[in-house]
Parts: sequence; structure tokens; C-alpha cells
Amino acid sequence: MKAGMFHETRAIPGSRSPYELESNVAGLGIDESSLISILGKLHPEQKQSFRKGTRDFFTEDDRLFERWDERHIAQLQHEFLRFKNAMVLWTMHPWERDARLAKEALRKGQQAYGVLVEIACTRSSEELLGARRAYHSLFDHSIEEDVAVHIHGIERKLLVALVSSYRYEGPRVHEETARSEAKILHNAFKAADKTKPIEDEEVVRILTTRSKLHIKAISTHYKEFSSSDITEDLDTELLLKQTLQCLYTPETYFSTVLDSALKDGADETTREALTRVIVTEANNVDMKKIKEEYHQKYGVDLSEKISGVANGNYRDFLLTLVARGD
Amino acid sequence: MKAGMFHETRAIPGSRSPYELESNVAGLGIDESSLISILGKLHPEQKQSFRKGTRDFFTEDDRLFERWDERHIAQLQHEFLRFKNAMVLWTMHPWERDARLAKEALRKGQQAYGVLVEIACTRSSEELLGARRAYHSLFDHSIEEDVAVHIHGIERKLLVALVSSYRYEGPRVHEETARSEAKILHNAFKAADKTKPIEDEEVVRILTTRSKLHIKAISTHYKEFSSSDITEDLDTELLLKQTLQCLYTPETYFSTVLDSALKDGADETTREALTRVIVTEANNVDMKKIKEEYHQKYGVDLSEKISGVANGNYRDFLLTLVARGD
Repeated sequence: MKAGMFHETRAIPGSRSPYELESNVAGLGIDESSLISILGKLHPEQKQSFRKGTRDFFTEDDRLFERWDERHIAQLQHEFLRFKNAMVLWTMHPWERDARLAKEALRKGQQAYGVLVEIACTRSSEELLGARRAYHSLFDHSIEEDVAVHIHGIERKLLVALVSSYRYEGPRVHEETARSEAKILHNAFKAADKTKPIEDEEVVRILTTRSKLHIKAISTHYKEFSSSDITEDLDTELLLKQTLQCLYTPETYFSTVLDSALKDGADETTREALTRVIVTEANNVDMKKIKEEYHQKYGVDLSEKISGVANGNYRDFLLTLVARGD
Repeated sequence: MKAGMFHETRAIPGSRSPYELESNVAGLGIDESSLISILGKLHPEQKQSFRKGTRDFFTEDDRLFERWDERHIAQLQHEFLRFKNAMVLWTMHPWERDARLAKEALRKGQQAYGVLVEIACTRSSEELLGARRAYHSLFDHSIEEDVAVHIHGIERKLLVALVSSYRYEGPRVHEETARSEAKILHNAFKAADKTKPIEDEEVVRILTTRSKLHIKAISTHYKEFSSSDITEDLDTELLLKQTLQCLYTPETYFSTVLDSALKDGADETTREALTRVIVTEANNVDMKKIKEEYHQKYGVDLSEKISGVANGNYRDFLLTLVARGD
């Protein structure tokens, strides 16, 4: 292989340039059928660009191509994995799935704490408990043990208590208590000069132990003390805001997450939520609510939006899951 | 009824004086058979002394008798209740039993926090969870919710986390971690001038999330840093000491509790532990260990000691339960 060779190769008439190929791995997932046809027609020299060469062999100019190539192969592999991962996640028992998602979130650190909140607050008490059981057998630790060991920041108290919760799910709500706790939250959220709300013991107590219906009642009473919605007063306290949303309007939370994941230029952590949310919520009665909320909020059908952003098998699979509730 | 009447009554030859009767309701429970024979022989005037009279009717001297009488009737009722309560507790499903014991402990406040620790730390993860489930259906709240609402002192963090725990119960223990956490505990226990150990976040984290085997390993490694046993260094931190004992040597903990309950002059809260411990541990494989530990520590058989202190049906019932494991 000689320096300069790829310049000629790229110029072969009738063959696709790497830049054309790139457009076929754009978006989420792989457009398998067009990829098959393109790769099948590639010249041998072009095919070599899909394998990793010895870097030192190339001139500066070739390295440019090589870098494109490496990045491209990584992306190809990554996009192939998207379909595989979705299939694997879907096949897992929901408890194992949540246990593995929690473990992965702990591995990733702060940027993924939201996944812990999502698992702890949008599942039913029994589902969360199932995830804790699965976590024992998979990882030889309890989930709260790992959260407590790995998280050192101010989020620790909230997150440990959230994953340990086993909330009451009956209909009983004591309105007077809900009202007085709405006041407690309001005072804590508004007192920006004092303790941060996430470090306020009463805030953590209320959000981590009260039933979802009770929290809903709190959000209603909150309007007696504030002109804004309870989550609006938390715009700078993302984890608390997310906790509240997950607890009392999960469909709003999920729609927002899906919207971010489907946006142009989203980073990979944000992108990954697409698979996670669609797969975990597909069997859930709330999928219908999520779709309604998404449509209302963003003026487009969730399925349509997914069709526009995702490719091939990955897209088809997601669309099948999204359509399950219909 | 005339002033002075009881003086005569008490003097009726052949009848028992109230002071004789008193000896028949001494000890725990009621000696039903001798009570039947005594009460059956009482004169009508004496029997009246078992009913509550109108206080104002009596002279000062009669009131003395009346007070004895009221106290005595209360004690009688109380000792009758001991057998009834033991039977009722025994008949309950263990989950319901623990849920009700926890509720009762919360009602009683600080002096009974130990019962919460006992339930949270001597049961298996699944048993504790069962109690949490039962608590939902019985009291329309989660147990951690009620603990968090009712307890405001420095014990809150520890107790909320203890009742929320779902500890890993597999065999895997990471010795290096256990060793480093033994050091953390040692530093916290010895630094008496700083934060109280119960307020130390790391102490609470370790005691509330680690598996029992891990805590056992910690207690072994602790000896590398201290000449004393881990619980000896906690003699002024009763709740932490009890937590540790319940977690890694429940038989030691239960023997101590039984010994206190069976001591002369124990107060009622301490006394009550007798029924609780015997009833809850009767079906437990550890009852045998508790008996061995008790015998070794106090030089007398647990059954013998119970025979000496308790009466009648209550005694017979406890002895039957204690003998179940043999």
C-alpha cells in the first residue's frame, strides 16, 4: 500500500466515496439494506478502508482518510449495536433490565444519575423491588449499597433513599398533611440563599417516602403558595425536578426525555434514552399517555419522529414497540 | 356501703386478705388455677373490692384500700393481657406481627426505637420486606414514611435507612473493603470530640447497606485497629451498638434483651420484650443459639428462668414455644 493510493481509489468512477457512505450511517441505527448494496459494490481498495491499517504506514494525507475510516467503523459498530442492544434489553425480564440499567448508570456517573431516578420513581413499588432482587443476584450487592458507595456528592442522600423506597400505593391521602408539606417544599425551594433544596432533609424525606398520590396532592396544594408550577420552581435543581416529574407525571417526563433523544446533535447519553424509554415503557399502560403527551407537546407523532431519525431494523423494532399499545 | 366496712371485711377469719391476693398476681402472667380458687372463696364484700367504686363515697382510709384495689385490678387485667397478647402475637402472620410491633414502637417513641432496630436487623431481607408490605395494607403508609415523620432526633437517618434496607444475602464479601470500612468505623467511634458516630454519614452508610456477612467481616477486621470488641467501643451509643449486635450476633442481642426482661424490677417496656422475643424467635432456627448463649452467659437455662418469673398459662405458653426447637 503506497501513499497516495486512496486518492486514486476515491476517484474511481461509479464507486461511492466515503463521504457518500457516511450519509448511510447517519441517524440512529443502520439502514441495513442500502448498506448491503453499497458495501457489496465497493472496490477492494475501498473495502480495505473498513479495516484498521497500521497508522505509521500512511502519509499525513492518508491518515486523514484513515481517521475518517476509524471513526466511521466505530460509528458503524455503534449503530449496529443499537439494534442489538434494544433487542437484548427487550428480551430481558424487566427486573433484570432495571438492575442492569442501574448498574450501568452507576458506572457512567453523574451524567446518568437521572436513570436511577427514572427507575426508582416511575416503576411501581413491586417493580422497583423486583429490580433490587435482580441486582442482588446479578451483582452480589444491594443497589442502595452500590449507590451509597459510588455517589459522594450532595445527590447521595436523595438517590439512596429513592432506590430504597417501597411506597404505599393505596388510595388514602391525608389532604392536610399534603398541604402542609406543599408549604414545606415551597419554603425550601424559595429560600435560595439557605441550604440547597436537595440537601434539605425535609425535602428529601417527602420526595423519598410519600406515596405518588400524596405527591400529586402536594403539587396541587403547591399552587396555593406559588403562582408557578411546583416543577417550574425547580428549574435549576434538575434531579429534584426530575424526581417530582417521574413521581406524579411520568408521561411528561418520558416525553421530554424522548424529545431530547430525538433532537439533532444530541450526545450519546441523551440518545441512549430512546432505546431505554421505548423498551421499558412498551408494555406499560402509560405508553399511550406518553404518545398523547408527546404529540400534544411537540406537534408530531412519536412514530413519525422516530421514522425520521432512526434507520433500518432499529427503526422498525422501535416502531413495533411503540405501536403495541394501540 | 359504709365507711369502715372494709376493715371488718379484711378481718373475716379464714378469708384471704388483699395482701395475700397480691402475691398471686406477682410475677408475669396470672397463676390462673390458684386465682380461681382464691376468688371463688372470697366474701361478697371482698369481691366488691374488685370492682371500681365511686371514690367520693369513701373515707380517707377506705381510699387507701380503694387505691390498692384499682392498682390491683389494673395489674390483674394487665397480667391477663400478657397471655392474651402472646397468643394473639403468635397467631399472627410474622409479617403482620412485625408491622404491628413497628407501629407500636413508633407510638411509644424513643424508649422503643430498639424494637425498630430489632425488626430491621434480625430479620432476613425477605422477612423485613414482608413486614413492609403488611404495614402498607394495615396502616396506609409505608413504614419508612412513618419513621421519617415521627422521628426527628439524630436517630432518624439511621432508622429510616435501616427499615428501608434490602441487604444482599449471598456469600460474597470483599475483604479489603471490609477492612477499610472497619478502619472508618474505628475512626468514627474513637473521635469522640467530633460528630457523634450516629450522625456520621459513613457509619450510617455502612451499617444500613452492607450485608450481614460483610458486617461480620468488618467486626473481625476491627480487632486489627482496636484492642476492644467493636460493640464495646460503642457502650455509650446504644442504638448503634444494638444495630451491630442485631446484624452480626443476634443471639447475643436476644439473650441480653431476655435477661433484662426477666430481671426483678424491670419496667414494663423492658418486660414486654419477653413475649416479643420468645414469640418472634420461636420458629426461628436461631432459638437454639439464643438458648445456648443465654445459658452460657447467665448460668441458668432460659426455660428455668422463665418458670421462676412467669405464671400460669402465660408461663406454660412461653415454655412450649421455647421448647419447640429441641
